[in-house]
Amino acid sequence: MKYLYTFLFLGLISIAFINCSNEKSEIKSDTPKEIPFAIVIHGGAGTIKKEFISPEKEKEITNKLQEAIDAGYAVLNSGGASLDAVQAAINVMENSPLFNAGKGAVFNSDGKNEMDASIMDGKTLNAGAVAGVQNIKNPVNVARLVMDSIHHVLLSGKGAETFAKKYNVQFEEDAYFYNERRWNSLMKVKEKNGETIPVKNARDLSTNYVDDHKYGTVGAVAIDKSGNIAAATSTGGMTNKKFNRIGDSPIIGAGTYANNATCGISSTGTGEYFIRTLAAHETSTLIQYKDYSLKNALHEVIFNQIEPLGGDGGMIGLDKNGVVAWDFNTEGMYRGYKRSTGENVVKLYHE
Amino acid sequence: MKYLYTFLFLGLISIAFINCSNEKSEIKSDTPKEIPFAIVIHGGAGTIKKEFISPEKEKEITNKLQEAIDAGYAVLNSGGASLDAVQAAINVMENSPLFNAGKGAVFNSDGKNEMDASIMDGKTLNAGAVAGVQNIKNPVNVARLVMDSIHHVLLSGKGAETFAKKYNVQFEEDAYFYNERRWNSLMKVKEKNGETIPVKNARDLSTNYVDDHKYGTVGAVAIDKSGNIAAATSTGGMTNKKFNRIGDSPIIGAGTYANNATCGISSTGTGEYFIRTLAAHETSTLIQYKDYSLKNALHEVIFNQIEPLGGDGGMIGLDKNGVVAWDFNTEGMYRGYKRSTGENVVKLYHE
Repeated sequence: MKYLYTFLFLGLISIAFINCSNEKSEIKSDTPKEIPFAIVIHGGAGTIKKEFISPEKEKEITNKLQEAIDAGYAVLNSGGASLDAVQAAINVMENSPLFNAGKGAVFNSDGKNEMDASIMDGKTLNAGAVAGVQNIKNPVNVARLVMDSIHHVLLSGKGAETFAKKYNVQFEEDAYFYNERRWNSLMKVKEKNGETIPVKNARDLSTNYVDDHKYGTVGAVAIDKSGNIAAATSTGGMTNKKFNRIGDSPIIGAGTYANNATCGISSTGTGEYFIRTLAAHETSTLIQYKDYSLKNALHEVIFNQIEPLGGDGGMIGLDKNGVVAWDFNTEGMYRGYKRSTGENVVKLYHE
Repeated sequence: MKYLYTFLFLGLISIAFINCSNEKSEIKSDTPKEIPFAIVIHGGAGTIKKEFISPEKEKEITNKLQEAIDAGYAVLNSGGASLDAVQAAINVMENSPLFNAGKGAVFNSDGKNEMDASIMDGKTLNAGAVAGVQNIKNPVNVARLVMDSIHHVLLSGKGAETFAKKYNVQFEEDAYFYNERRWNSLMKVKEKNGETIPVKNARDLSTNYVDDHKYGTVGAVAIDKSGNIAAATSTGGMTNKKFNRIGDSPIIGAGTYANNATCGISSTGTGEYFIRTLAAHETSTLIQYKDYSLKNALHEVIFNQIEPLGGDGGMIGLDKNGVVAWDFNTEGMYRGYKRSTGENVVKLYHE
């Protein structure tokens, strides 16, 4: 009997010690001496399956994602700021017709390209965003100008365009944004709904297109050599969108969030659900207040908060230690990352 | 020795039991059998000091706040939904020239009234919002229609007005929104900045005005007999605002948030700081993940997150137990609440 008590007592004491040492090792792993710099990007989540994409198209998309990663990584590698890195990566994707942002933006109900973008600085928690802008080549650059130049965070519509003109931002004609496949996507939706067809006001200047994956938003998150995190997102929104709908991409805390204390996040998906759950900010608070890893926090938000409401999509991110993670509940997500530790990954499908 | 082990062992077991019973009692206290229903409102925070407001004006503002509280309370008392209660309270304030919302909205840089509003349902986490709408009598009603009628959350500008017309929402001429004091506020700012004066396109139909307190947004949060929480906010934004700037009022998680699991919140202040801190959602997460009381969570967000960034303003809220709280770092905030337990409070100044 005496031995039984001794055994039980020592057992309980041991459990207490194990708990304590676990807590300590977790704290240690949060503050490594050297933070690797890194960039992670996405080119949208959706019904992306290997059987829908030809080997040539797969190669083309993979190469463009790598080009975007490399553009951002070069900034970080030369000691540049994470804010400049995410902008560089997103500009590559905005300038390609392969993604639903900038040149490749889908058409709204009036047959126009109506774009949203945002950027956030994890060091200062400063942010800038534009919603519903037309004919701007790189909406994320205007979001950056909003952040850097005025005390507002979010500008919209014609007012945002007036602001952009004041800062000599590059505008493009409608023809630059025209893309036959995107136009056909709009026609298909219009016909299905029995809606009036808008007048086609631009010629087909593009021979390069992809299927309308519905959620082809682009985003990037980076951490630089100084440990500063930045995140940014850019999108053309939804095909046939009406009523100047604004999605989650220009909404700080929904589509984009960065905080040096926790992580940086960029979202893509059915934007309304990311707005209602504050997906990007919620991920950050789970890390900050519940000691979740970034990976677990992303999984929790996507599968236990967004999915139960009926939403789908994905998020990419990296934490203050430069650890990269992503998650999505769609068939696939265009995504990739590169870290100063040597890893370089580009993926399209669920795997 | 045997007794010592027995004593230590039983001691540890007792501690374990005490911990368990504590947890149980905490869970119990979170779910009282009868949740009091309640409504709390604000009419904006700013440089509101007793010496700036005449006794007559003070009475007028106090009476209007009470009228708004009573309108919302009546809905709750008759078994109505918290969503209808917050709308009823806000409509009273939107229809008064005393607040910066609806009829009393300030003028933007073009001499127009450009309004934002949002509403959120804490039961479903559904939400609706409009940004930058003109000539709509009650913007919060359009936010509600967005929430109830379509799968979008946020509509903006002309598109949101087109949506509102489709649903036969009441529009008013510019003259309805004209208010000499608001116009003079705009002129003062324009003259100070050396800017062009816009053409006055409406006659003065109002003899009723207040000083431009800069942050005169209105908001309401309610919990009904079923324990459902709703929150809503409506504003005219900032005097002389440019570039179709969107503030925090139509942004879910910044100006408005409701979640039956935690609380409902409505914000007022320098909107950009409430966007960057996700003020309303952050308050909710402190309750959910850090076991803060609503009162402590509001204080933490306003004084330790918004103020260090340079922002000011206030928030009102109530938690899932019907406990009401507010906080602000400005001179004053128009505010009040009424609970089914009998308390009825209206306050204007810091006290």
